[in-house]
Amino acid sequence: MAVTLAELAERFQCRVRGRPETVITGVAALETAGPREITYVSDKRHLGLLPGSAAGAVILTAADAAHYSGTALISDNPRLCFARVAALLHPGAPAAPGVHPSAVVAAGAVIDPSAAIGPLAVIGAGARIGAGCVVGAGCVVGAGVGIGARSRLVSRVVVNDDCVIGADCVVHPGAVIGSDGFGYARDGERWVKVPQLGRVVIGDAVEIGANTTIDRGALGDTVIGDGVKLDNQIQIAHNVRIGEHTAMAGCVGVAGSAVIGRRCTVGGQAGILGHLEIADDVHVTAASLVADSITEPGEYSSTLKAEPAEAWRRKVVRLSQLDDLARRLKRLEKEISELSKENKT
Amino acid sequence: MAVTLAELAERFQCRVRGRPETVITGVAALETAGPREITYVSDKRHLGLLPGSAAGAVILTAADAAHYSGTALISDNPRLCFARVAALLHPGAPAAPGVHPSAVVAAGAVIDPSAAIGPLAVIGAGARIGAGCVVGAGCVVGAGVGIGARSRLVSRVVVNDDCVIGADCVVHPGAVIGSDGFGYARDGERWVKVPQLGRVVIGDAVEIGANTTIDRGALGDTVIGDGVKLDNQIQIAHNVRIGEHTAMAGCVGVAGSAVIGRRCTVGGQAGILGHLEIADDVHVTAASLVADSITEPGEYSSTLKAEPAEAWRRKVVRLSQLDDLARRLKRLEKEISELSKENKT
Amino acid sequence: MAVTLAELAERFQCRVRGRPETVITGVAALETAGPREITYVSDKRHLGLLPGSAAGAVILTAADAAHYSGTALISDNPRLCFARVAALLHPGAPAAPGVHPSAVVAAGAVIDPSAAIGPLAVIGAGARIGAGCVVGAGCVVGAGVGIGARSRLVSRVVVNDDCVIGADCVVHPGAVIGSDGFGYARDGERWVKVPQLGRVVIGDAVEIGANTTIDRGALGDTVIGDGVKLDNQIQIAHNVRIGEHTAMAGCVGVAGSAVIGRRCTVGGQAGILGHLEIADDVHVTAASLVADSITEPGEYSSTLKAEPAEAWRRKVVRLSQLDDLARRLKRLEKEISELSKENKT
Repeated sequence: MAVTLAELAERFQCRVRGRPETVITGVAALETAGPREITYVSDKRHLGLLPGSAAGAVILTAADAAHYSGTALISDNPRLCFARVAALLHPGAPAAPGVHPSAVVAAGAVIDPSAAIGPLAVIGAGARIGAGCVVGAGCVVGAGVGIGARSRLVSRVVVNDDCVIGADCVVHPGAVIGSDGFGYARDGERWVKVPQLGRVVIGDAVEIGANTTIDRGALGDTVIGDGVKLDNQIQIAHNVRIGEHTAMAGCVGVAGSAVIGRRCTVGGQAGILGHLEIADDVHVTAASLVADSITEPGEYSSTLKAEPAEAWRRKVVRLSQLDDLARRLKRLEKEISELSKENKT
Repeated sequence: MAVTLAELAERFQCRVRGRPETVITGVAALETAGPREITYVSDKRHLGLLPGSAAGAVILTAADAAHYSGTALISDNPRLCFARVAALLHPGAPAAPGVHPSAVVAAGAVIDPSAAIGPLAVIGAGARIGAGCVVGAGCVVGAGVGIGARSRLVSRVVVNDDCVIGADCVVHPGAVIGSDGFGYARDGERWVKVPQLGRVVIGDAVEIGANTTIDRGALGDTVIGDGVKLDNQIQIAHNVRIGEHTAMAGCVGVAGSAVIGRRCTVGGQAGILGHLEIADDVHVTAASLVADSITEPGEYSSTLKAEPAEAWRRKVVRLSQLDDLARRLKRLEKEISELSKENKT
Repeated sequence: MAVTLAELAERFQCRVRGRPETVITGVAALETAGPREITYVSDKRHLGLLPGSAAGAVILTAADAAHYSGTALISDNPRLCFARVAALLHPGAPAAPGVHPSAVVAAGAVIDPSAAIGPLAVIGAGARIGAGCVVGAGCVVGAGVGIGARSRLVSRVVVNDDCVIGADCVVHPGAVIGSDGFGYARDGERWVKVPQLGRVVIGDAVEIGANTTIDRGALGDTVIGDGVKLDNQIQIAHNVRIGEHTAMAGCVGVAGSAVIGRRCTVGGQAGILGHLEIADDVHVTAASLVADSITEPGEYSSTLKAEPAEAWRRKVVRLSQLDDLARRLKRLEKEISELSKENKT
């Protein structure tokens, strides 16, 4: 695909500085972009690379454009503009509508004629696959599952019976939606399984990373709000509710019945314990553990940072001595108070 | 299915208070249960919701039943009773016995006629699939694998060659049983693979979560005891041994050759280092790291809890100043001791 | 397979002490090895088990051999020697070359005649599968993927379009290579996906564990160097670069654009934040979080170790009191300084 900068500016409501007739055929990184490619800078630290760039054009804020003499597309939000330009120029290979002959589709599944069901996919009885959906190779879609228009299960995704996925979602390989929650009752030393009877209900425009797992509700549903973005290898337990537009980085774990607000961000490897509530606009730093409800927006952390091991181990030893330090401090306070009194008398 | 409360009471050895002729057709949550549904309360915090419930019956302890005027099923362990009632009323769709025509079964595999092999499953040579087993869509069962009666591989499970799964197990989608352990020998800067020649041997009534991985032994076996429950995304390394009825929450990692006792519980995201032993009845809190053997039952922790980030960062800075604090405290002790002496002279 | 100790000694350049005519047919653990099996000791702690061993031979260093009177294979690096002997004696079942009739191979894929494509594998258009490769059951290999000679995708592996895997690699079940990176631009409260247009490029002799995920680059590639070993359930984000012969244990997470040196080791559950650089020969302890670039080789840590929960909680409380302790210490210093002055006057 080839477009001029002028066309891009009109389509995405931004402004050309320099040569609007420049033809752009693709996007590339700042360091590698050639004369028919467009790139962007949104981080001040990369401004220094601009003079060396051979890019046909660079998407920049008006302020940053002052650091660059070449052709630029001026945008208030260069990264957003870049995302849209990239999606336009690199739409991905379209999937051919229809059901691959090797797929196994149960009687009673309703597949929109514009949907594409890939090789060796399995579609259960009563599943409803919306217009323009792609169910990639090796996916297993259970009985009664509903998938909204234009959603894409990339490949080898499992969606268990009766779960619901909205429109415009993307689910990456290895993700499992609707596995049983971890619910048991004790019977002496044994664990007796509590049947997991709820569903997973996923909104629109949700993206779910590779090998992420989302358990179905025990009773009632696990609910993922519109626009939520989950990275790879995240575990969402039963009956969790995640508010709209919340994003979680890789390897996060969320325990059962946690209720998470809207527009939150959760750093990689963070954990959220169960049966608690997190307000809207809460940001949890990487590898932190949220153990109590959070009622105020803001940043929360229990992150520790690696340092040279010897120094770290000394700190840990010091931590063990805190009881002792506190005791000695208390004794000193007493002694000084007595000395003080003696001095005054 | 429809049963009367009287029938439930008889079957599960509990007692009706109120109308034993109440017909129950399903289970539901306290807030949503209707007049033909049964629910339960096992957590005192939920007693306040009882008056508003429209449930046909509520499973309660005798003590808690005093807070409720409606029809109740009185049980010493309401959650356990509920689990059993739910399993009775919601048994899940039965899988039709037989091998789906799209499955690929190697010569020499022995599949009980009452077992159900789903679409696009692969069964290796010499595998033995027991009575009433379900091997779901897209599972890959290796050569020589044995699976005991009534066990269920939900879908897209991998069980590598020669591994053994007992009776009445459930393995959720994406789980991998019998992958190679992480074993290498150094050869200068290179790593040379140590062949992983053992198996995974899983007892009876074990449940294994979605995308959980269990490596085969290097020499000898990785052993998962009867009744063990593993949640999603757990990693069990080679030659680990887990004692009976131990339960681990999501995202736990256990390193090689760790030996874990019976009836332990391990919180989400906890880690257990290798070549150590953990006694029976040990409980590890979420996100803790067990780095040394534990010989006594009890609760163990290295959990930190997230707090407002600014406060947390101040604490981390203070931790860095402990060396300095300790030094200053020591100096003060010396000064005071001298002052004291001076005062006495 | 049966070999004499003399043959092993010659092939692997080590020395027999005792009976070189001993016939060896397999390897086993020290405790279980019989008279036709060979074992090894590389850890001094296991020397005590030697006298009780019924092994046909034991691989030992010359120094350790002094603790053993039986037949021994003397090697400078017993574990390495053992790895090679084990690979010779237990080569694994060879895969029959050819494409299984149930596999789905797109037009234009180029599969070497010596490669083995397993049941229900999917190979995309233009993929190139090298000599001696094994693509196991249920793997999904995308369009344009290249896989070097003798590499093995064990089963149910996904390699997305255009990714490249070198020669002599092993990829375990459930691994996903080339999933989209986690890249979004903000648009008010919404997240807009940034197309992920790069690849994953994997060198030679790389091993990738079960359910490990490696995201494709956003622009440019994610690069895994020759000889890298990744354990199970590791998450590698977009545009990460890992240097040659680096090894990571299970459940590690690496965030976007991190650049990791050669010969590093990363302990289980450790995390590495994005946009940083780690030097060669850095060793990160288990469950640590690397949050800043590391420029010097050595060991780095933020590991905490679980202890009895009550003691741990007391420490955490003490940590909260550090502000107070520091304030009180400062006050004492002032008071003592004044007392000192008074005493002198």
